[in-house]
Amino acid sequence: MSMVENGPSRRERSGRTARREQRSHGDRGLGRPYIVRNIPTYDVLSEENLVRIEAAADRILAEIGIEFRDDPVALDHWRKAGASVEGELVRFEPGLLREVLKTAPSRFTQHARNPAKSVEIGGKSVVFSPAYGSPFVMDLDRGRRYGTIEDFQNFIKLAQSSPWLHHSGGTICEPVDVPVNKRHLDMVYAHIRYSDRPFMGSVTAESRAEESIDMARIVFGERFVDENCVILGNVNVNSPLVWDATMTTALRAYARANQAAVVVPFILGGAMGPVTNAGAIAQSLAETMAGCALTQLERPGCPVIFGNFLSSMSLRSGSPTFGTPEPAIGSMVIGQLARRLNLPLRCSGSFTTSKLPDAQAMNESTMSMLAAVHCGANFILHSAGFLDGLLSMSYEKFVMDADFCGALHTYLDGVVVDDNQLALDAFREVGPGSHFFGCAHTMANYETAFWDSSIADNEPFEKWEAAGSEDAATRANRKWKQMLADYEAPPLDEAVDEALRDFIARRKATMDDAWY
Amino acid sequence: MSMVENGPSRRERSGRTARREQRSHGDRGLGRPYIVRNIPTYDVLSEENLVRIEAAADRILAEIGIEFRDDPVALDHWRKAGASVEGELVRFEPGLLREVLKTAPSRFTQHARNPAKSVEIGGKSVVFSPAYGSPFVMDLDRGRRYGTIEDFQNFIKLAQSSPWLHHSGGTICEPVDVPVNKRHLDMVYAHIRYSDRPFMGSVTAESRAEESIDMARIVFGERFVDENCVILGNVNVNSPLVWDATMTTALRAYARANQAAVVVPFILGGAMGPVTNAGAIAQSLAETMAGCALTQLERPGCPVIFGNFLSSMSLRSGSPTFGTPEPAIGSMVIGQLARRLNLPLRCSGSFTTSKLPDAQAMNESTMSMLAAVHCGANFILHSAGFLDGLLSMSYEKFVMDADFCGALHTYLDGVVVDDNQLALDAFREVGPGSHFFGCAHTMANYETAFWDSSIADNEPFEKWEAAGSEDAATRANRKWKQMLADYEAPPLDEAVDEALRDFIARRKATMDDAWY
Repeated sequence: MSMVENGPSRRERSGRTARREQRSHGDRGLGRPYIVRNIPTYDVLSEENLVRIEAAADRILAEIGIEFRDDPVALDHWRKAGASVEGELVRFEPGLLREVLKTAPSRFTQHARNPAKSVEIGGKSVVFSPAYGSPFVMDLDRGRRYGTIEDFQNFIKLAQSSPWLHHSGGTICEPVDVPVNKRHLDMVYAHIRYSDRPFMGSVTAESRAEESIDMARIVFGERFVDENCVILGNVNVNSPLVWDATMTTALRAYARANQAAVVVPFILGGAMGPVTNAGAIAQSLAETMAGCALTQLERPGCPVIFGNFLSSMSLRSGSPTFGTPEPAIGSMVIGQLARRLNLPLRCSGSFTTSKLPDAQAMNESTMSMLAAVHCGANFILHSAGFLDGLLSMSYEKFVMDADFCGALHTYLDGVVVDDNQLALDAFREVGPGSHFFGCAHTMANYETAFWDSSIADNEPFEKWEAAGSEDAATRANRKWKQMLADYEAPPLDEAVDEALRDFIARRKATMDDAWY
Repeated sequence: MSMVENGPSRRERSGRTARREQRSHGDRGLGRPYIVRNIPTYDVLSEENLVRIEAAADRILAEIGIEFRDDPVALDHWRKAGASVEGELVRFEPGLLREVLKTAPSRFTQHARNPAKSVEIGGKSVVFSPAYGSPFVMDLDRGRRYGTIEDFQNFIKLAQSSPWLHHSGGTICEPVDVPVNKRHLDMVYAHIRYSDRPFMGSVTAESRAEESIDMARIVFGERFVDENCVILGNVNVNSPLVWDATMTTALRAYARANQAAVVVPFILGGAMGPVTNAGAIAQSLAETMAGCALTQLERPGCPVIFGNFLSSMSLRSGSPTFGTPEPAIGSMVIGQLARRLNLPLRCSGSFTTSKLPDAQAMNESTMSMLAAVHCGANFILHSAGFLDGLLSMSYEKFVMDADFCGALHTYLDGVVVDDNQLALDAFREVGPGSHFFGCAHTMANYETAFWDSSIADNEPFEKWEAAGSEDAATRANRKWKQMLADYEAPPLDEAVDEALRDFIARRKATMDDAWY
């Protein structure tokens, strides 16, 4: 039944020439399966101050502790590991969690059903994944409305069609027309059916996590799944300092199956954490270390991702704010801390509170996304589509963000220094006061020279005006419709498809519809 | 006649407490006179590759050379300095320019007529200055049109009113209703009359540069100007590898008066330079070193700023592109090279080719502006208002960009690590599972905790919709009108004002109107 006979082998796609060939084709060709960054991370904090933050996290863990609610197995793990367990409150001596975390791999492959699209997570790799978790969707034609399974499938198709995303994501939007207890089956099926990239499964209940993994087993084979990562589960801390059973049982389900949990605190400074950045970062470190360590107690050596979700709030209105400077600079510190733990890092990408794909949206998103790539994040969730403070998935914003992901491919290549790039022959040919338009070096390099956005309008004003004075949102609106019209589903083995549909039908037959 | 009796002394404005007090007042209070960055620069290239780029620049200078057209004084300077001069082509042995540049200061103060607003240029300082040089202006009500002296004055008033800009700029837009040969007098007067911040003078002819400096002498006194920098002149290389007499005579006029030239190549990759980034950077280094060195031959020890204007072009349409990834990452390398020369650095801020203050505009601008602050630029021209590939100055974009400059004040403060910021007491007070809204630490810190944008809308969707579903451009439109309505001119000594107007009248009386 498995598509994978001997296990997918990742096709190596390194080499600058190959990359440039891909890039030059723009949206017409394939992107890379993921980015290997060629610029260093942006390390903003001194060793001394990193140690102070780590010491603060250690004191939070030792003196205040973290509650693990309603999960006796988790408490049992902690007892055996030597933590202090009083009721549901767990306290950790400094060093305990770091010792447990030593079995976690610093990098791993998440396999895609198309082996050419498997991704590396860790080290210098950067993987862009769509936004996650919005109940609403938006487009310029229909405005804001609740998401449906059709919207969900549309966003998978858009992600699959973009050469600049690397991952199909998870709950791209909530398909609220499907009962809440059956939703995960349709979502995982849609990822497998409409995309051949890696994807994420459900975390809203232990059984849903397990069924997500079961569906992956149908695609990849049981043994392959036991030995390789093929599905991620994004689990949130109930910040501050609480892990509830929904999350820890899902986290343990992924770990038990040797699949990667993404462990993410959810800290809005001033609400779920202190209003000061250093304190929120220390809290984030404490909460994430505890969650990551729990995966290693469930199954030593299983992959896990160190997550980060810092945000701020407007203390006048009480509204959360996204894409603001404090979380952006804070992410740089989180990146340094994750590397000191030798763990792969997840950050959030294109954050904004704007309700439209307007100037505010892209100002906030660009700052947030650049922080994610600068801080060294390996897996960047919310790379495309995020609007309205995580409440809406926008069709127009999705293609704008995906286009910016394309620009970031070029950006992360850095400045290459070799004889061709230094172009001394071109200077000799052109000399002072002339131009480089037709010179040999330009002719040899122009096709691959510059990032070419498919959303930006670079035409002269008069030409732009004559063509209708369109703004970026209007162009994006046209583009997503064209992408959906042009979409072609990747091939899926019919036996696998049938087995998946059979699995879903059998699971659904055991459930009454639940709507909340 | 001078306002300045003993020379302006910069009021020290360091101290985190003072900064936070200022920031907490948002637009209602004063910003800082300039930023002292508390995060390191983002150094992306290795020592080995920096040396290779420097070696390429040295070969361009030694083997190809730079033409200095129609300026026998410049050629004479080069001859005396030991360069090879054949006709107007000047070639430089490796090391010659670096030796000449040793007399240039690594940092200096540009004095404002209000001493509290003087700026440091160099080291860790960051100074935001408005965009420069557009023939057109734009706003949502009237669309695009040629700029006038009224527009010019309006933008000075907006800059003066923003707590997040530090400099009044130069040719913010071209006032095309004033004859081209008299324009500089009205522009410099407007900077002095409507702003009390530092400003820039004319560079379009040696006489205009000198008259700009003469007007500064009326304000600051002759001796003070001879000993201190009070005016900048932004001079462009006629890339590739040509300096023309308009620019070199203006550059020498500023240097002779001990004022700072800002030396800026203008390289659109594929047109005025190679299509490859490393080559464009080597060219930029060669051209800038030559210009900076010329200031030191004119007057050793005078201040000078190492400038950078990398851009790319669409090789399909031939249009220039701005805010793209290649110049952004290239700026990081330029920053490293400038620091190796120990010179203050100018970069360009909020670049875009968009014709509207839309999503494209702020995506490109944010990437470009963040590159400028990350690369360590001390003087960031084009920090506010830039639209339409340098052709239009936008009222709405101006206030959006200025707002982002405010966010960057917070960003450049970095993550402060001290006991209050680490907030251990707050964790003790709140404990697991509660919230931080009313805790003592939040109450003590919330007023200064988070950047609070005056353009972003952070309200819930329903509240935003009920208030009219406005986009950021609409809010910005309202804001600049309010800022102009609220504008109050800073006090100006009447005798100084009269002397300036008398100088202008006398100069204009000697000129026939010239319109091109």
